[in-house]
Amino acid sequence: MSGGNGTGAPLRVIPLGGLGEIGLNLLVLEHGDTAIAIDCGVMFPDASMPGIDVAIPDVTYLRGLGERFRAIFLTHGHEDHIGALPYVLAERAVPVYGTPLTLGFVRERLGEHGISPTLAAYGAEPCRVGPFAVEPFAMTHSIPDSVGLAIRTPVGIVVHTGDFKLDQTPLDGRLPDIGRLAELGAEGVALLFSDSTNVEHAGITPSERSVGAELEVIFRQATGRVLVTTFSSHIHRMQQVIDLAARFGRKVALVGRSLVVHVGVARDLDLLQVPEGTLVDLARARDLPREQVALITAGSQAEAASALVRIAMGDHALVRLDPGDVVVLSSRIIPGNERAISSLMNHLYRRGAVVVHDRVARVHVSQEELKLVLNLVRPRHFVPVHGEYRHLVRHQRLAMEVGVPAEGCHLLEDGDVLELDDAGARRAERVIAGRVFVDGKGIGDVKDVVLRDRRHLSEDGLVLAVLAIHQRSGEIVAGPDLVSRGVVGEEASPEVLDAARGAVMEALVALNPESRTDPAEVKEEIRRALRRYFKRLDRRPVILPFVMEM
Amino acid sequence: MSGGNGTGAPLRVIPLGGLGEIGLNLLVLEHGDTAIAIDCGVMFPDASMPGIDVAIPDVTYLRGLGERFRAIFLTHGHEDHIGALPYVLAERAVPVYGTPLTLGFVRERLGEHGISPTLAAYGAEPCRVGPFAVEPFAMTHSIPDSVGLAIRTPVGIVVHTGDFKLDQTPLDGRLPDIGRLAELGAEGVALLFSDSTNVEHAGITPSERSVGAELEVIFRQATGRVLVTTFSSHIHRMQQVIDLAARFGRKVALVGRSLVVHVGVARDLDLLQVPEGTLVDLARARDLPREQVALITAGSQAEAASALVRIAMGDHALVRLDPGDVVVLSSRIIPGNERAISSLMNHLYRRGAVVVHDRVARVHVSQEELKLVLNLVRPRHFVPVHGEYRHLVRHQRLAMEVGVPAEGCHLLEDGDVLELDDAGARRAERVIAGRVFVDGKGIGDVKDVVLRDRRHLSEDGLVLAVLAIHQRSGEIVAGPDLVSRGVVGEEASPEVLDAARGAVMEALVALNPESRTDPAEVKEEIRRALRRYFKRLDRRPVILPFVMEM
Repeated sequence: MSGGNGTGAPLRVIPLGGLGEIGLNLLVLEHGDTAIAIDCGVMFPDASMPGIDVAIPDVTYLRGLGERFRAIFLTHGHEDHIGALPYVLAERAVPVYGTPLTLGFVRERLGEHGISPTLAAYGAEPCRVGPFAVEPFAMTHSIPDSVGLAIRTPVGIVVHTGDFKLDQTPLDGRLPDIGRLAELGAEGVALLFSDSTNVEHAGITPSERSVGAELEVIFRQATGRVLVTTFSSHIHRMQQVIDLAARFGRKVALVGRSLVVHVGVARDLDLLQVPEGTLVDLARARDLPREQVALITAGSQAEAASALVRIAMGDHALVRLDPGDVVVLSSRIIPGNERAISSLMNHLYRRGAVVVHDRVARVHVSQEELKLVLNLVRPRHFVPVHGEYRHLVRHQRLAMEVGVPAEGCHLLEDGDVLELDDAGARRAERVIAGRVFVDGKGIGDVKDVVLRDRRHLSEDGLVLAVLAIHQRSGEIVAGPDLVSRGVVGEEASPEVLDAARGAVMEALVALNPESRTDPAEVKEEIRRALRRYFKRLDRRPVILPFVMEM
Repeated sequence: MSGGNGTGAPLRVIPLGGLGEIGLNLLVLEHGDTAIAIDCGVMFPDASMPGIDVAIPDVTYLRGLGERFRAIFLTHGHEDHIGALPYVLAERAVPVYGTPLTLGFVRERLGEHGISPTLAAYGAEPCRVGPFAVEPFAMTHSIPDSVGLAIRTPVGIVVHTGDFKLDQTPLDGRLPDIGRLAELGAEGVALLFSDSTNVEHAGITPSERSVGAELEVIFRQATGRVLVTTFSSHIHRMQQVIDLAARFGRKVALVGRSLVVHVGVARDLDLLQVPEGTLVDLARARDLPREQVALITAGSQAEAASALVRIAMGDHALVRLDPGDVVVLSSRIIPGNERAISSLMNHLYRRGAVVVHDRVARVHVSQEELKLVLNLVRPRHFVPVHGEYRHLVRHQRLAMEVGVPAEGCHLLEDGDVLELDDAGARRAERVIAGRVFVDGKGIGDVKDVVLRDRRHLSEDGLVLAVLAIHQRSGEIVAGPDLVSRGVVGEEASPEVLDAARGAVMEALVALNPESRTDPAEVKEEIRRALRRYFKRLDRRPVILPFVMEM
């Protein structure tokens, strides 16, 4: 058995996000006077958080650590792992470690917020921070350049898988480093954190390459435009679309700002290969014959105001669908977005498009591979991460099945604290953890991001706008009614709210008739109008639009 | 070619619900001075309709028909096909035709509303109503005693499949009458309406019996209680659970009022066989050893205040889960309920239960069988029914693939009117159609159902209650704030709203701590409190609780 060289202090394991609900990944490891964090992500809102752009982890505990908090180590560049960096680094600009693509995405994110901490790429040597020595190893996921982490600590080796699948035929040939997991296991691992997202799926997760075969059939048969929607960080999916487009004589245009940014970063790092002349401007694509065009669009989750939603509503300045165009929804549905995506699909059909929701490749590891990792690493202690409560329970059960002793399995939720030393593991007092909402990240005014948490809510308050529309005509049946809470001063006076109501009405009347029947669009419009209105009064209340269809 | 005996008048086809969105099934056929309706259903709310119990079709058009509207023919007893009967019959009590089980369920429904129209079982002879002669034929679905309808009209035979799957091994041995479909096809069918729900599923739909095999494994292995959740009308699923329980030495208790009612109706009609002594009271089941108990519970869609949600929250008076109990969610997820069901599952896991979301058997017909029906019936005209817009489009495409001429395929949405005569088919002017909300159907005060439509909204108004709770502690972070609209008179005064606010606070404080962290429970509690409060003032506003988690 390695580890446990007796400094006396225990290793403290403190998940601040991602355990018990999906997203917000932020895991703190603390030993003596040094603390490091693994990942630092956001959570995107679902129907239960109307009007909210994004949620970040509560950083009260990190704030309390002060100078003891010394570094953040990233596993990959997804928003639920890097998106909260601007907020956390604004409190304290610790160095951030990651792979080149991950840091490329982080740099874009931070640039938007005007923060510039040290960003350091993992090197050949482990990164040493206090008693921790962190070494990455290759993993595969739905974003290139993903890693797991092996962390040497005074109580032994800690392994974190990151988010992963075990793709044996990755598009870039960079295999997951299963050999390294085996070596670490042979050396002796004190604690394993492993991805629980797909623990409910039996068997193994298919390779990203399997998606290519399905896309090829679509490209072969398409006679109109081909639109493929995917996450803007899914570089390998885009690579497959670009390769197919080139093969079938189509030009590719990108629709959506985040796509353009991410593609730029990936090309700079040579992680995305674009054949000469394949990528064209959207304006150029508009003028090409339909059968020579492929579009990659953002909006896979039917986010209001996303490119795809605008296209579906006939409200996109440069892209108009014609009957016979094919729209491929090539990304999994994030739970909570089912209704919105279903409605999006109906609108696409109304435009005459052929909609293909392809058999989506899973992007997280499934049961058999989770057992493989557990068997290779053979940890003394195991903490399932990245999952809702039920995923964590099932992952823990899986670990016991393959022989991790029950007393070594720890089911932690956000805010729980586990202490580990030679004597064993025990729970310590819980710390503050939870979600904090961020409002105001509209495309175009990203600089204007305003952090709203429970403290700020009481300063800037909340404006709720209620409206009932007729589901078919978009006609306003009742409202808009405005109710404010915590909006201090005369801004909360009836006159001001009346004027705000007028601003909302004006915006709604100006909305195109089709958008008016789409609650998501109407909500977005209400938010834009109210944000603009209150900004003039120098107020930034949290705006919650609430649209009923009748 | 049959039909078209030249009365001159066209057959008017007028879908008032169910085409373009799921639920609310209500299809009107009109010829000369006679109109009949097929089915008359409700739609259950999803997250986009908070605070709404149920929606019914707008009956403005039916109302306009006056005495010309002469009968309703039912295909089966699901709520989305019979649930709106109390409201439609309250306007005009036309006779209702159905099979014995369907009418049994209808009778229960109407009894709750104190309405007693003529309910007539289909007989050996076709039912004649004006120029229509309606004859049912056997179909299989997730409720026994389902039928399709063959309707002779002056313009030819009209066939309506009802909701169906083609189960070749139904539990009750009552096979779908494919022979009759073939005969009708040979005779010549002018118009076919066919179920589009599962048109996106390739292949065929497995038999209900296949679910039994999976349930058997669960019963064989279970060491604690077995709870099976299903729709209360799914008599055959209950039959399988009861048979397995008897085989494995367990007593069965029913949890939920609607289950008890439906089981009673089915037993009276000999459609459910319960071995002597197998069914016991819930109080009795509580005192039996865990391994001798099976429970059938309502709440498969995680409806607030349903038995299963109360059990999951540890808030059910008679059922308390222990670690090792197995909960089987044995019903499909109705779109829009994914988040609520996911949260329900997490709570069940927190109680230590083993949760099985079994591979749910599809209950609607899939592509290959839809093609079979089209090929047997060979209709001159085809209208896909029972589906969202995209389902209708895909079903229409399927029909063209098997040879229904494009000019015979009609994609109708609710409110569209199709006229059919010897000269062919054409669109006529649209009629009013849409959803109307019903608020106030709480268990216990079902008699108190109040119909809210757009007219009533302006009379009784709307009270919106906004509350922010801490996601973990259930602590109230902001609110409750009340905003009213259209609540006339002094009831809308600040004092009254303040008092209402007090009533809400009181109810929330009395709520058990676990329920306080469940937004659905909190909403339900707010509604109960406000309904009670305004009832004392003799007001029945639509109540919309709005709970944010922070």
